[in-house]
Amino acid sequence: MSDLELKALVFDVFGTVVDWRTSIANEVSNQLKNKGFDLNWLAFSEAWRGKYQPSMEGVRSGKRGYVRLDVLHLENLMEVLEEFKVSGLSTAELDYLNRAWHRLKPWPDSVSGLERLKKKFIIGTMSNGNVALMVNMAKHSGLPWDVILGAEPAQAYKPDPKTYLTGVDWLGLQTDEVLMCAAHNNDLVAARDQGLKTAFIARPTEYGKDQSVDIKAEHEFDFITTDMNDLADQLAC
Amino acid sequence: MSDLELKALVFDVFGTVVDWRTSIANEVSNQLKNKGFDLNWLAFSEAWRGKYQPSMEGVRSGKRGYVRLDVLHLENLMEVLEEFKVSGLSTAELDYLNRAWHRLKPWPDSVSGLERLKKKFIIGTMSNGNVALMVNMAKHSGLPWDVILGAEPAQAYKPDPKTYLTGVDWLGLQTDEVLMCAAHNNDLVAARDQGLKTAFIARPTEYGKDQSVDIKAEHEFDFITTDMNDLADQLAC
Repeated sequence: MSDLELKALVFDVFGTVVDWRTSIANEVSNQLKNKGFDLNWLAFSEAWRGKYQPSMEGVRSGKRGYVRLDVLHLENLMEVLEEFKVSGLSTAELDYLNRAWHRLKPWPDSVSGLERLKKKFIIGTMSNGNVALMVNMAKHSGLPWDVILGAEPAQAYKPDPKTYLTGVDWLGLQTDEVLMCAAHNNDLVAARDQGLKTAFIARPTEYGKDQSVDIKAEHEFDFITTDMNDLADQLAC
Repeated sequence: MSDLELKALVFDVFGTVVDWRTSIANEVSNQLKNKGFDLNWLAFSEAWRGKYQPSMEGVRSGKRGYVRLDVLHLENLMEVLEEFKVSGLSTAELDYLNRAWHRLKPWPDSVSGLERLKKKFIIGTMSNGNVALMVNMAKHSGLPWDVILGAEPAQAYKPDPKTYLTGVDWLGLQTDEVLMCAAHNNDLVAARDQGLKTAFIARPTEYGKDQSVDIKAEHEFDFITTDMNDLADQLAC
């Protein structure tokens, strides 16, 4: 496609911009090793993340009102701690551990690629993470967002159309002036269904070397890229 | 006060960060001179701005639901054009003229001061301007916001407490961890009433050299400053 009509790029964050798997494993091991625990830290990280999609279903289905992801993350953390037989953490320790999601590390190409893209386009988040989580992560890891959009502004979790459409509306743009960038096929299909343009950013080790899903683009997207700098190249940034 | 507990600084924008009066006068004259009009451009700018506070009253009072400031600005523009006997503009020309508010120029100290403050604190907007207006202005004028907060996220216009409190809530902070920065006494008093910390930034020529209001801080605020760099000095940035 021509990129002439694009005005804004919005990004999935967990997995697409930052490496949650090793970041969470490192954060959890740093905190729990000191307390005498010896776990499979990557397994802990994957188990915590494994509860992410199911935990949003209550909000998506309307069974419960919108609650921010920090709340769901904490509920999920309590379950994972029990499964891994970890107990005895104070409220402050639990809060700090839960905020590990506010301190996720970018993939090596993310900051340099976003800096390039920012010169030509509005760049924003389109994440299920809440605003504080996104802002704190950006400050921690140098992510140069122009605007924080996504679940909390829309009070709805992707792939609910409202999430994408509220972001587009707040930017004062048409859907085809906004490029949704993600490492996950289903996120892009949902955005495409609402009229957004789409860019696949391959993150074939998001779930480790044996990853079985989202290895490659499985649908027709406007851009298929290998990382954030490849996207910047393709958009002539 | 000690600044140790501050986590985020939020800013009024029109008048505090940007000089709407001369920016709008320049934009309007650039566009209307070409069409043969010869007006008092500063008077036009002041007349347009003069309709700003009254136009928000319908939303504040509940007479109409929230509509974004771009909509109010356009309604107000139509009235001012009629008052100044300007007619014959196309829809595209009216839209471009209305978006002059998206292209306001910063006061000379704003960008350098904000860059300093951003290194130590989260910095965000707390404006009645809508998100697209704020984002486009930031891109146009190099304002390095971490987050866009204010009227549109809250669906309420300052000084409605909801505007300040939604911003604080989305940042995941306590009210006394957030510093409201503004050149307008009433904005700061409203924020202070909700528990936010306050900083007065003097803009004694916002309305020109004969300005009669908001020349100085008229209440007890936590910081009284002469400009954005003075604020950065006082916060040891």
